[in-house]
Amino acid sequence: MKVLITGVDGYSGWPLALHLLSRGHEVVGLDNLVTRKRVKEVGSWSATPIPSMKNRQKAVREILGKELGFYKGDLSNYAFVHDVLSREKPDSIVHLAEQRSAPYSMIDVHHAVATQCENLTGTLHILYAMKDVVPDAHLVKMGTMGEYGTPNTDIPEGFFEFEFHGRKDYLPFPRKAGSWYHWSKVFDSGDVMLASDIFRLAATDVMQGVIYGVRTPEITDNRLLTRFDFDETWGTALNRFIAQAVLGLPITPYGKGEQKRGFLALEDSMQSLRLAVENPAKAGEYRVFNQFDAAYSVNELAEMTARVAKEFGLTPVIEHPADPRVEAEQHYYNPIHEHLPKLGYVRTRHLEDVMREIFADLLHYRRRLEAKKHVVVPTVSWRSVDSRPAIAARETGAMAPPAPPVGPSEPQAEGHPA
Amino acid sequence: MKVLITGVDGYSGWPLALHLLSRGHEVVGLDNLVTRKRVKEVGSWSATPIPSMKNRQKAVREILGKELGFYKGDLSNYAFVHDVLSREKPDSIVHLAEQRSAPYSMIDVHHAVATQCENLTGTLHILYAMKDVVPDAHLVKMGTMGEYGTPNTDIPEGFFEFEFHGRKDYLPFPRKAGSWYHWSKVFDSGDVMLASDIFRLAATDVMQGVIYGVRTPEITDNRLLTRFDFDETWGTALNRFIAQAVLGLPITPYGKGEQKRGFLALEDSMQSLRLAVENPAKAGEYRVFNQFDAAYSVNELAEMTARVAKEFGLTPVIEHPADPRVEAEQHYYNPIHEHLPKLGYVRTRHLEDVMREIFADLLHYRRRLEAKKHVVVPTVSWRSVDSRPAIAARETGAMAPPAPPVGPSEPQAEGHPA
Repeated sequence: MKVLITGVDGYSGWPLALHLLSRGHEVVGLDNLVTRKRVKEVGSWSATPIPSMKNRQKAVREILGKELGFYKGDLSNYAFVHDVLSREKPDSIVHLAEQRSAPYSMIDVHHAVATQCENLTGTLHILYAMKDVVPDAHLVKMGTMGEYGTPNTDIPEGFFEFEFHGRKDYLPFPRKAGSWYHWSKVFDSGDVMLASDIFRLAATDVMQGVIYGVRTPEITDNRLLTRFDFDETWGTALNRFIAQAVLGLPITPYGKGEQKRGFLALEDSMQSLRLAVENPAKAGEYRVFNQFDAAYSVNELAEMTARVAKEFGLTPVIEHPADPRVEAEQHYYNPIHEHLPKLGYVRTRHLEDVMREIFADLLHYRRRLEAKKHVVVPTVSWRSVDSRPAIAARETGAMAPPAPPVGPSEPQAEGHPA
Repeated sequence: MKVLITGVDGYSGWPLALHLLSRGHEVVGLDNLVTRKRVKEVGSWSATPIPSMKNRQKAVREILGKELGFYKGDLSNYAFVHDVLSREKPDSIVHLAEQRSAPYSMIDVHHAVATQCENLTGTLHILYAMKDVVPDAHLVKMGTMGEYGTPNTDIPEGFFEFEFHGRKDYLPFPRKAGSWYHWSKVFDSGDVMLASDIFRLAATDVMQGVIYGVRTPEITDNRLLTRFDFDETWGTALNRFIAQAVLGLPITPYGKGEQKRGFLALEDSMQSLRLAVENPAKAGEYRVFNQFDAAYSVNELAEMTARVAKEFGLTPVIEHPADPRVEAEQHYYNPIHEHLPKLGYVRTRHLEDVMREIFADLLHYRRRLEAKKHVVVPTVSWRSVDSRPAIAARETGAMAPPAPPVGPSEPQAEGHPA
């Protein structure tokens, strides 16, 4: 099968390319490389060094013996999207190229607008280009479990049957997102649902939990590593906790730390996406997969991090700053996830084991973390107090601890191997 | 009370300004005047002549003895929005300034993107400017009954209690819109809901049915008339039917004509919006009103139009072209609308009476209809066949009947009184 991955330079896009290539698929990627730029903007970088795309392609050739096609460009340019689809005529398009950070979307009005318009525009451009060029191709779109929020009921896979005033219907389950970013993903889902209906496109919408890990079986060499973000804007809570433990900083779950979310190992996320690609939806079908293995509270993550950190000889401490997000701190959480197992999905990894791998990698790249130590502390507030001052202060260094005297330099985009 | 109306030059914005002024409120409007431009773009104009904004303000002064403040500008400009709010410090903001045409959003990918980004950006700019400048003001946002689609159950006012797998929650009722435009309104609602939560804004979201009529009690002079669009892109089905009857063209309900929608007279829509303004939501409250009086099928509208047309000595014929939209032709339709009656809302007008008023006005301005006769025929398809050729053909005149030799000229934006 020929698969086009949008956002191939990203955290999931890169290992997905490697995974699909290893499984014998033809893979072409596109990316505007903006994540590298935006992570730099908040004063950070990936803990794992990320070679330039040219060197990534070279590593794929040398290590895996495969060719990865690549187009540099932006989904906001419709002519570009149309052109790539016309040249490549993919069977599947895995759409991962979105602004993916909730805190980034909450920085100020401009980041809110950019997040929502960027994500919507990219998705609409793909939908129309598919209709025009490859109407029989299958779209696998990355959504997020965060679209559902935290309802007091089970969470079905996209749709549910319900009764209201004595009559029944089967409709999209209510969405109630908690950030401009999460709403942008809800919006995308609405657009894909409509396109599937009016353009008769085949679409799989993957409501993904939080992914952890930097390695998959295909990553047999550090030149193939995917990115590991640990700053407040681009890193997940789990990534930050591990970075904090490695740096000897307190591990900081927000508030009471009882907020629960669904989690999945990077390797199993790749398995899920491959299963979606290899078992496409039918023309006009819009199906939704909830994709995660286990739900953990933020406290459980912090405690597990501390436990594993001790195995590595570290001396972690857990602290509880106030929650800067507006979210329920204690809630029911039970999403259903049956569609992927029906396609043959089997969980292969568990958090504690993967965490050991992450610790090993981060200790290896410890100097890269130390060089950006100041980015691990949260400063963006989601409440009505304007968050600009905090961001501005960080940019000028006013709130940051002094920079280490000698940090690794960053010659090629995201830096060289440490 | 001081009320800011965004989109004051529009179909609802204008009569709302007149209504609120007459009720003793202070009113300031803003508008980018783009509806005039966009209606021209599709080769049409308002059947009722619309004076320039300067002359509209003059008419308000001379006829109603009131001052209407006005800012010309675009909601896409955050500095402009922030500036207007800072100068005016309104108690209420009635947000009507959106791309409001579903067919316009379906023309092609660029119109889809423009509709969604424009509407989202405007709303986000208002939300952030409110947070910064007038956090205690009340936002009345115009939504549409179309956000809900046509579920097989009753439609509650925004939220509903439901049971799923033995547990209950109270959440937003499922949305399933049928056009990029209608989804853009769903998206707006999500953003207002979140802003109400995180910025503690007071918000009323009005899910409005289809509005009919060109007059309210304040419109005592033709210089105060609001616009009447009758082309396929900007006019409602009802407006087109009446225009068709006046022009001696067949009345054309799509498909079987059994699609039902909720309707409301312009005068009663103004009553509803005033009630929302005069009875504001509380800080942090996001409430939803369903606003309509009666549901009619497209066939019922066509038949009523034909009946009233005969009273005026016209000889109407009804035809049924295929439905260019993708929508259920036969469905259950029972939205609940109890919130507004609880605030004192009483229906004052009925469709058949208002239709007589419209016929009288359109017969008066018949020459303006005749000059744009070719725009009454539908050409935008919502299905996967590209609609561009039809639009392009219309623009070059290839599909249009020959233009009448002498049409009224259009010296001032939307033309002079006939």
